[in-house]
Parts: sequence; structure tokens; C-alpha cells
Amino acid sequence: MNQLRRIGVLTGGGDCPGLNAVIRAVAKSALFDHGLEVIGIRDGYLGLIENRMQPLTADDVSNILTRGGTILGTSNKANPSRYMTGKNSKGQPIFEDVTERVIHHIRQGSLDALVAIGGDGTMSCTNLVIEHGIPCVGVPKTIDNDLMSTEITFGFSTAVQTACDALDRIHTTAASHHRVMLVETMGRNAGWLTLHAGIASGADVILIPEIPYDVQTICRFCLHRRERGKTATIIAVSEGAKPIGGQAVIGRIVPESFDTIRLGGVSNVLADQIEKITGLETRATILGHVQRGGSPIAFDRVLATQFGHQAVELLCSGQFNRMVVMQGGKILSVPISEVANRQRLIPLDHPLLSTARAVGTCFGTPGESPSPR
Amino acid sequence: MNQLRRIGVLTGGGDCPGLNAVIRAVAKSALFDHGLEVIGIRDGYLGLIENRMQPLTADDVSNILTRGGTILGTSNKANPSRYMTGKNSKGQPIFEDVTERVIHHIRQGSLDALVAIGGDGTMSCTNLVIEHGIPCVGVPKTIDNDLMSTEITFGFSTAVQTACDALDRIHTTAASHHRVMLVETMGRNAGWLTLHAGIASGADVILIPEIPYDVQTICRFCLHRRERGKTATIIAVSEGAKPIGGQAVIGRIVPESFDTIRLGGVSNVLADQIEKITGLETRATILGHVQRGGSPIAFDRVLATQFGHQAVELLCSGQFNRMVVMQGGKILSVPISEVANRQRLIPLDHPLLSTARAVGTCFGTPGESPSPR
Amino acid sequence: MNQLRRIGVLTGGGDCPGLNAVIRAVAKSALFDHGLEVIGIRDGYLGLIENRMQPLTADDVSNILTRGGTILGTSNKANPSRYMTGKNSKGQPIFEDVTERVIHHIRQGSLDALVAIGGDGTMSCTNLVIEHGIPCVGVPKTIDNDLMSTEITFGFSTAVQTACDALDRIHTTAASHHRVMLVETMGRNAGWLTLHAGIASGADVILIPEIPYDVQTICRFCLHRRERGKTATIIAVSEGAKPIGGQAVIGRIVPESFDTIRLGGVSNVLADQIEKITGLETRATILGHVQRGGSPIAFDRVLATQFGHQAVELLCSGQFNRMVVMQGGKILSVPISEVANRQRLIPLDHPLLSTARAVGTCFGTPGESPSPR
Amino acid sequence: MNQLRRIGVLTGGGDCPGLNAVIRAVAKSALFDHGLEVIGIRDGYLGLIENRMQPLTADDVSNILTRGGTILGTSNKANPSRYMTGKNSKGQPIFEDVTERVIHHIRQGSLDALVAIGGDGTMSCTNLVIEHGIPCVGVPKTIDNDLMSTEITFGFSTAVQTACDALDRIHTTAASHHRVMLVETMGRNAGWLTLHAGIASGADVILIPEIPYDVQTICRFCLHRRERGKTATIIAVSEGAKPIGGQAVIGRIVPESFDTIRLGGVSNVLADQIEKITGLETRATILGHVQRGGSPIAFDRVLATQFGHQAVELLCSGQFNRMVVMQGGKILSVPISEVANRQRLIPLDHPLLSTARAVGTCFGTPGESPSPR
Repeated sequence: MNQLRRIGVLTGGGDCPGLNAVIRAVAKSALFDHGLEVIGIRDGYLGLIENRMQPLTADDVSNILTRGGTILGTSNKANPSRYMTGKNSKGQPIFEDVTERVIHHIRQGSLDALVAIGGDGTMSCTNLVIEHGIPCVGVPKTIDNDLMSTEITFGFSTAVQTACDALDRIHTTAASHHRVMLVETMGRNAGWLTLHAGIASGADVILIPEIPYDVQTICRFCLHRRERGKTATIIAVSEGAKPIGGQAVIGRIVPESFDTIRLGGVSNVLADQIEKITGLETRATILGHVQRGGSPIAFDRVLATQFGHQAVELLCSGQFNRMVVMQGGKILSVPISEVANRQRLIPLDHPLLSTARAVGTCFGTPGESPSPR
Repeated sequence: MNQLRRIGVLTGGGDCPGLNAVIRAVAKSALFDHGLEVIGIRDGYLGLIENRMQPLTADDVSNILTRGGTILGTSNKANPSRYMTGKNSKGQPIFEDVTERVIHHIRQGSLDALVAIGGDGTMSCTNLVIEHGIPCVGVPKTIDNDLMSTEITFGFSTAVQTACDALDRIHTTAASHHRVMLVETMGRNAGWLTLHAGIASGADVILIPEIPYDVQTICRFCLHRRERGKTATIIAVSEGAKPIGGQAVIGRIVPESFDTIRLGGVSNVLADQIEKITGLETRATILGHVQRGGSPIAFDRVLATQFGHQAVELLCSGQFNRMVVMQGGKILSVPISEVANRQRLIPLDHPLLSTARAVGTCFGTPGESPSPR
Repeated sequence: MNQLRRIGVLTGGGDCPGLNAVIRAVAKSALFDHGLEVIGIRDGYLGLIENRMQPLTADDVSNILTRGGTILGTSNKANPSRYMTGKNSKGQPIFEDVTERVIHHIRQGSLDALVAIGGDGTMSCTNLVIEHGIPCVGVPKTIDNDLMSTEITFGFSTAVQTACDALDRIHTTAASHHRVMLVETMGRNAGWLTLHAGIASGADVILIPEIPYDVQTICRFCLHRRERGKTATIIAVSEGAKPIGGQAVIGRIVPESFDTIRLGGVSNVLADQIEKITGLETRATILGHVQRGGSPIAFDRVLATQFGHQAVELLCSGQFNRMVVMQGGKILSVPISEVANRQRLIPLDHPLLSTARAVGTCFGTPGESPSPR
Repeated sequence: MNQLRRIGVLTGGGDCPGLNAVIRAVAKSALFDHGLEVIGIRDGYLGLIENRMQPLTADDVSNILTRGGTILGTSNKANPSRYMTGKNSKGQPIFEDVTERVIHHIRQGSLDALVAIGGDGTMSCTNLVIEHGIPCVGVPKTIDNDLMSTEITFGFSTAVQTACDALDRIHTTAASHHRVMLVETMGRNAGWLTLHAGIASGADVILIPEIPYDVQTICRFCLHRRERGKTATIIAVSEGAKPIGGQAVIGRIVPESFDTIRLGGVSNVLADQIEKITGLETRATILGHVQRGGSPIAFDRVLATQFGHQAVELLCSGQFNRMVVMQGGKILSVPISEVANRQRLIPLDHPLLSTARAVGTCFGTPGESPSPR
């Protein structure tokens, strides 16, 4: 095996609490434990395309453990296999495969290996780099917790806590006003974040992409609660939740004379429907980007530190092209290729769903008998 | 002076952190300090219209100091002088003056006096009651901090803290993504909440209703920051902020085939404009109802306790028909009539505006030279 | 199998965030899902000795999910097999076995089964009850996370977060003053809480009962950091940490003329030693009871809800005398007898220890080379 | 008036949340608003004695608004008029007046003026500098809030919030265990912090230096509560609280064979007394240094920003040798000499004391009738 001397590290995809904690653990483990040089790559794969790198010293990663975000920067739109290099005469974007350029910059920078911290998309890009013979390891990142092969990723628990705090706040206000209150969390395809935050805050209704909802069932549930003297009904809803037979409303745009306006999401649609059908005052709040920011909670700082350390261990023991995972409560690894382009949704027989139902949660499924609470 | 034996207390208007702390202080001061009976009125003036009351004991107000919301409930739409009593044959609402009914219920319940905790609207209703000879005192409540005659109201500082926490979270995410991020806070007419939260979180741009903005100036400021290597620009914007010569976009509704959808607010409009003009990736988050909920911060718990205690002191010393206020850092009182139907906006020469400008904040005023930072 | 109709639930041992969440999940699952009656027993086994019980309705457990503590109360000193029933003529306590009384009260109250939420001690008492033929299930509780057979217990993550928040605060102050700062956390025999909070906050030194420390090594580490320009050294220390060849100082008492004074703990002893040996200004803070209180974080609310639900599932499927556990990330169960009187310490080859060492943490082991950071 | 070109800024005395926010506001106002150069002085007056300074740029103060501590460092023991310069042959410290050295370094560094952020002690040192003809302004800092002439100082509200959060946590645990719980906060001479945190958390007993306590009265109050079915009694106590006719126990040291051990404080003494007299289980927690650390709350960030800006305004308008203050809710200034060596205690007729008594708080004054609650 070729001896490693110099490794690169990058963060790709959407922001996530704990990225800095992983960077710090990668850098400290590599510097202290193995005497490696560490090179920070700016803005994910964009930094490899544009050759923007810098050495990372112990001082650079000092005091970043507690900070949200990533000191390296990140980007969402830098897939080397289809990179926008300009526009043609008609103003249409031109996409090119710049993978060779990425490989060139890696070789030019004398990077013996690469640690890629990111989600689905970043792992796909990393697969390209692996195919060109660069040893890589992946560290999974997604606040949606929907990556295959790992039970949990750092950042998820912080996002759950942020959403739970917001739901707690909404709860007191809903009760004061006798309202139905919808809180929309992230989650386009997977409902993990909504399910956890919903259970944690005692949400009365939880709507997730995996279980299409029936608005009439939800309305009956709300009215049933009002009749039993409950002062409020709290609905936690994933942005990707959809009605039975219908589609999610993410990203719908309404053109207007004045300008193009981004619409609210499913929670706004549902708020209007519920208010009309039930006559109950109903309001919606979309949590949005606050779920991606802020200092990671202690759990995520520990997990991120373990992931970062394990990534370096994999590299230094020659276990290339694997992604760090948590399985059965243990830090292990799987081939990166196993992860790319797949998503881990909530299985309909997941125990958390039974737990939620047992404590009286409504999922908007027709025929669900209104809870006796 | 007639000896007081029995007082009523109600909370009206929008939810606000600290309402329970005021209720507790009113009840404990009245019960312990003056041996009065205390009657809780449900859902603000609605409870007086519908005669829903209950005695409040020391046990009822035990352990409520830390809780958001109001154990008495509140309502926004119960002005006795114009109360919707039904609909006519065409389905149009019928409004009646039910003030006499309110007075009747107060007399029937043997309430010697009333403590009304609320904002502008609640104080107007209280004025009606006063005109019928019922001794009242008011306790000011508004998370917008825009009531006349008082420098501060409870709940405001908690709302500022909640908005500031969200801005802090957004800050780390904006920097990771090199984005312009807008955070929309409450404040239809007054920008106090946005100004305080903006300064507290180091927002780069602060847009408030009192200072109409020029979108080109904002865009130049964003571009100027990017050129100087700043990773992000944070814009704190009141829901009531408006362009020079334009109108606020609060509550605009777009009818659609499917349904009527509530639109996002000014932050969504601005996000689209800024992204188009500058080419910088721009995102908006609307904080919404989370700003009204949750446990009050220590400052508001102390202030609410002082206000509640002072209300009882006013009643018991025969100083009727006054509202508790904070002036010059002292708990004082003013006639309720002085407060009704007026609003306290940020004066354009307010020292906080100079402070914000001095540390480099942009208010979107044309001609503002881009800060050198 | 005998049909269950009525179950009792109790909480025993030290306070722990999430107890109310378990009680709620037990009650709701039993009431809604299985139509059982639920009886709350006051103050742990004391309530069974003294026959203090009350029905638990859905209303009783409404809105308790977010609250710290236990609505049922708890007690530390009510082991039925050795219960203090009075004092003899010399003032010495008389202990009796009152297990029969406990069994009598369970039968008298028509409890078909018992859910016991508690630690080591509570599980031992529950074993006694089981031996008398009462079906029981246990739910593990300990903020020390040192119960056998389960990877994690609710409350632990909240305590870690509380300790981590305190360490974060201490960190900024230590840096301003160039101090060595010790923060003493709970953990008499097991260092889980200290290890997690220490890693999460980036503590420079972590001292746990499982790894006796050498004070000279710690001092060399502190001086080494100062020489390298580090502004502060943070030491997270378990209350049960002890020097090599020495004893823990928990609970030492110094008699004085005035009164008997409880001494500070190991952190105070160490602070004095370190300051004397190194000449560096050193301070200690003992976190104490704040680690047991407060609203559980989202993670613990979800875990506690799962545990409570699973307890009822075990009872209703006739799987008696088992304790709910988390193993390999799954909610399972083990015989209660397997748990009693045993403790789960940190094994010296635990991966978290290697992770901590890899990022530069000192454990006070002689020969440890001062980290190059 | 001599034109200012270059100003120095230092932070002295104990750590305090918001120091960085003041430094940032001073630097940004000076740099952006007035085109001045700003020099940061390390570790308070020690940096002037040892001539350690560095320019502060806009980048240096970027992103420090939210951080606890001070990027400049601070020191407690650097009074130029009595500075320890070494030890004599007997090992006794030698103190010298090094004020001339300070003045020399200020002149050498071409500092036209000095902004000194600190408390009582720092203002005394600043008076020395003023007497040598160096223009200075002071910014008041103390988490005890006991500086003369200003109603509030930054950091105080954050410390109150930290103490209040701890008291909230202790509250749930005390109730679960039916305990008397003491929480000891900072405050050697003034009880502001304890009084505010105590009222904010609904502490049942508040003990402050200004009102010496009678332990029997406290015990009667605890027993009275127990008789009325209250599950817990919470006592907030200042470290400087003392019994009637007795002394405070701060800093008592017990020499031991093994080593000299720092004792716990007044809360430990009281816990033992109360447990012995009442038979109620009683525990104490000393909050300690966590009260000085952490990110400032929004209120303190705004206040610190105002103070920092105002300091520069004073300098630039030639109003030298004044300290920024808050009076009547307004940012004003007073002569520094007015502040030095004086302390602002809680007057016994302060309205907050009446408020606390009205809601049932016991201050341990003999003859106080046990509250009926």
C-alpha cells in the first residue's frame, strides 16, 4: 500500500450542523494521530473544479467544534460530470464533463486521498473520482436522515431539536388562541425529521411523504379534539407531504404581473383547506432554513467527531472508497457505491409509527379512528 | 372609596410570552397582599360577552410563571361595540353593540374592578367599560412594542430573542452557501422587533416600515459585500417593510383554481428581486408564529411580574382607569384613554438607528454609501 | 394468560429528564391502545409501602411530555426489603422487610401488573415484587447511562447537553482569563456523561472513574498548552474520578466548630493541586443537580416515548418481568434479573476513547505524550 | 481640540458576556464612522504595563458579536499603581507604581485616547491614566450590576438568564424529590443578580447581602409550605448573603493534612442548617463561573453595541474622561471619577422588593409572616 502523506477534505451539498465538527476531527486525527498534511478544499466539488485549496492547520480547526456551517464553504451545483461552463448564443446553459479537470487538480495538489463529507449528490461525485483511481472515503451528511446504509447522520438530531423547539413555541400560542396550527419542516421525500420532531413535541397530527393524507380525516380529527375540549391541534407536516392521489406542492411558482412570487408550501394549502372545512381558525408556519443552521447539539458533535475520526482511520488502514456509517449503534463502513442515488424512506412498518399511533397521533389515513384522547 | 372585594382579570389580543406571568402576579398580589377574590375571564372580552368566568386560586396560578401563552385564553375578534352576532339571509355578518351585555355580566359576577391585559384593541374595549362606570386598570401587551406611553412591554424581549436565535442560525448557513438570506419578522407598522433583533444578530441590512427601502441600494450593498470577500449578507426585514412609494405586501392573496393560497410576505418578494438583480443566490425565511410563543425570558418574567403587581396596587389605591407603563426605567401609570388607538413608531432620529448605522448597517435608503466593511 | 385490566406505574430513584414522557407514553398506550385502566403510584416504592395511588387519566398526562421531573414523585430510600419503620430507644433506626405490605397494597388496588421506571435500585425492588408473582416490566432510567444491557437510557442525552452547555460557557471565560478551568459532572462509577460532554465541548482533558489520573501528567499537559499559546485548558471531570492508587473524594465531610460542611468534590482538590504545581490560575465549577432537571431534549422525548410504549406492549403480549432496552439501535427487552445490581462501565477499549485521544484529549495517564496541538 | 487619529481599547476585570460586542462596536464605529485607527490592548491594564498591543481591523471584529468572552483577553490583577514586579529575598511580593510605564507605552504607541471597558477596578486605573493627561472614556461592565450611576450594564441580563435557566432546572428536580433546593448565584455585596433571577424563576425564598437572614424564619417558611402540600421549596441565595449579626462565608478555606481545600459557600452552610432544623431533605448547587460565560442574550448584544458606539461618540465629540451609562432608559454619560470605588446596592425600599413580597417571596426577615400560598 502506498503511504499517505497528504489528504484533502471537502464539504458538499446543503448546510448541516456538525460539518465543522467533522472537519475538525478529520484534521486533528490526521495531523496528531498520523502526522499527515491536511488540505481544505473550498466550496465542495467546485473547489476541485476551480482549484481552490488551502492547508488546514490545528489552529484553523481550533474553536470550530461548536459552530454551525462549514469553514470550507459548500455548494449545491457542482457536479463535475455535468458542470455549467457558460451559456450559448441563445442564452442556454452549456454543461460539460469536467471530471478530468478535478482529477488534474487533485494530482497537481499532491492529494493522496480525499475525504468527502456530503449527501447523496456528493457521494455520486466521489464515485466519479474513485473511478479515476483516487482513494476516497465518504462521511454521510443529511439533515433529512435519508441516506442508505446508515441509521443516523450528524445534523439530523440538531434539526429535530430546532423543529421541536419551534413546535413547543407554537404549542403554547395555539392553545391560547384555540387554533389549529401547522408547522412545516424539511423533508421532500423522507419524513424522518417530521416524525421525530412531531413525536418529541407531542404533535397531534403528523403528515409525512411516506403516508399520503386524506384532508377529511384530518379535519374530522381536529373537530373531534375541539369537541372533547382540547384547546388546540398541532400538525407537523413535511414539505413533501401529499394528499392521497395528489402531488407535493414544493416549489410551486405563481407568475404575477409584478414579479414571480415563491408560494408557501403544503402547510399553507392545508391551512386554507382545514379552515374552510372545519371553521376552526388555522395558521401555518414554515420553518425553512433555520433547520440547517446553528450550533450542533452535543449528540451531533460527538457523532460528527466519531465520523471524522473514523474517516481518517479508514484511509490510514487502506480501506478506501468506503463511507462511514452507523449501524446497530456502531461506527462501521460500507462501499460508497452502495449509497449513491438511493434514499432511505420510513418503512410503513417502522416501530416509531406504531409508537406514535399508540400515543394517539393521527397520520391522516382514511379510516383511522379518531383517537379517544 | 368603595372597598374592593372581587376583581376580574382577562387577556385579549394576540398571544405574547409573559401573559401567564402577569396573571400570576395579579392573582398572587390580590390574594396574598390584599385578600381579594380573583375571577379569571375566559378568552378576553369574549368571556365577558358570553359570561364565561371562573375563580382563580393560588393553586391555579402555581407553576405558570415559566409557561408561554395564557391559561385564560384570548381572542382577537371580540370588540363589544361591534360584535358579530349572526348572519343575515344573504349570509352577510350582522354586527351589534353588546356593551350592555358585558356590563351586565360584570355586575352579575359582582366584579368590583377589572384588570385588562392587552394591546391597543383591548384598551379600546376597556375604555368602553370604563365609560359605564366600572373601575379598570390596563396592562400593556404587544410583542411589537408599539404601544404609546410605555418604553417597553413584556413579551417584546422574548420575541427579540427568538428572532435573534433564528437569525444566528441563518447566519451560519448563509456563510456556508455564500447566500443572501432574508429573515422576516413580525411588525406591520413598527420596526422595533426587527431593529433590535437585527442589531443583536449583526444583520447587515435592516428593513423596517418606518424607513421605506430602495431595492437597488440593497442590491448594491450586497454586491459590494461580495466583492470585499464577505461570505454572506443577512437581511432582517419587518413584515410591514415597503419600497419607497410602494405598499406593504402583508396578507396578499392569490386566487387559484385549486384553492386560495396565502402568499409569502415581503421577504419572498425581495428575495426574487435581489436574486434577479444581483445574480446572488438569495433565500427567505418567515419566522411567523414562533415569535409569539414559548417560555418568556427572565427579563420578561420580571417585567410581567412587576406590571401585574402594579396593576393591583393601582386598583387598591383607587387609581382607576390607568394603564401600567415603564417610563424612564420606572413602573408608572397613565390614563388608559391616552393609549387607545395610537401607535408608537420608531422616530427617524432614534439613537438606535445611529448606532446601527455606525456599525455598518444598511437601511436601504438611496444615497446611503456602501459601508466600507 | 390472564387478561390485564388495570396496571400501576411508578418512578423510583434520582430525578431524570424524560420521566414524565415515559409516564405519558405508558398511560396513553394503555388507555388508548389497549383500553386498560392506569393507576399512578406516588413517590416510587414508597407509594406502594404507604398505599398512595391515584388513577391516571388522559387529561392527567396531557402537556407533561415537555416537562422535567415526574408528576408521580420519586424517592431514593424506599427499598421494601429494608425499610426504616422507626427508631429504637437509643435513637437507632429500625429496618424491616415490608415486602408483604407492598404485595398486599398491589392486590388490594387490583393492579394486574406494574410498570417500574427506575435504575439499578428500583429494578432490585421490582425483582422482589416479581418473586411474589406480580407481573412487572421495567423501564431503565439513569442519567449516568451505566445500566447493564441497554446502550442508552432516556435522560442521559439531556444531561450531556446540559453539561455541554455549561462547558461551552466556561470555555469562553477560561479563554478570556487564560485559566485552567475544571467542570465537575455527575458519574460516581461510570464516566459516560463526562466523556460525552467532554468530547462534545472539546474539553482538553477528560478525567473519568475508569481511568485513574496522574496529576503530574495533567499539569505537564496544561503547561505544554500554555507554551504553545493556548489561552485556556478545560478539564471535564467525573465526580468519581480518582488519582492512580487513590480514592474518590465524593461526599467527604469536614467537621467544624460551627457546623458540618459539605466539601466540594474532586474538582476543588484538583484545582488546588494544579494551581500549586503549575502556577496557572485554576478554577473549578461543580454542575450538581442542574444535570438532573429541565425539559428533556427531543432525542430523550422520543426515546422515553418509545420505552413507555414498549413497556405496555410487553405487558399486553404477556412478556412479563422484562426490562425495555436499546440494543443495536433497536428497542428490545431483557429479563429484569439480568440488570439488577450490575453496572456498565466504559471499557478501556471503547472506540469513543480512541476518538477522544485522536483529536488530542488528555486522560491523565502517565506516559501519555502531550498532544502536539 | 486635538484631532483623534488612533485610539486604544482594553477590557479589564472579570469576564462578562457582551465584552466582544462592545469591542466590535467601538472598532466599527471608529473605523467606519470616523476613520480612526483602532489598537487592541491585550489583557487589560497588563497589556499597557507590558506593552502588548495589536491593530484591530474590521476583519478582526467580524463574527465576534455573538461570542462570550473577550478577544483581547482580560486580567484581574494589574493595577498600575500597585503592580507586583517580583519577590524579595524572603519570597514576599514587591509592589511598585508602574503608572509611568503605562503612560510611556500609550505615548509610544501614539494612542490619542483610550476606551476602557471594565468595572470599578478598571475605572480606578483609568482615573490614574486620565490624571496623566490621556483622554479616556469608560464603558461600565459588571455582571453584578452594582456600578454607580448606571441602571444596568451589559452582561447582567445574560447572567440573570443563565441563573434563571439553572433555577428552572432545579425546580423540576426539587418537586420530584420533595426537596428544599438552594441555588447560589454570584453577588458578594449586591443582590441584583439573585433578586432578578429569583423573581424570574419564582424562587420561594430569596437571600441577598442587603437583607441579612434569620435561618429560623427560613425554616418555618419551608415547613409551612410542606404543610400546605407544596412539593418543593426553592431558595435563591447570593454568595454574599449573611445571617443577621453574622458574616458572609465567601472564600473560607479549611486547611487539611492532604491539601488546602476550597469550601462550598453559604448555600452549603444553609443546606446543612435547614436539613437539621426542619428534617426536610435539602441540597445546594453553586452556579459559579457559568454565570460569566456564554453568548450574550439579544438584550445585552444591543446594549453592548450602544455602549461601544456611544464611547466613540464621546471621544470624537471631545467629551473626555466620562463613562457611558444608562439612566432613565437613555444612553448618557457621567464623569469616570464619579464611579470609582463606589457600589450600587439594592435600596431596602426598591420596588422590586415589594413586588417579590407581594407575590409571596420570603426574604428570611424575622417576623415575616409565612405567605398564605
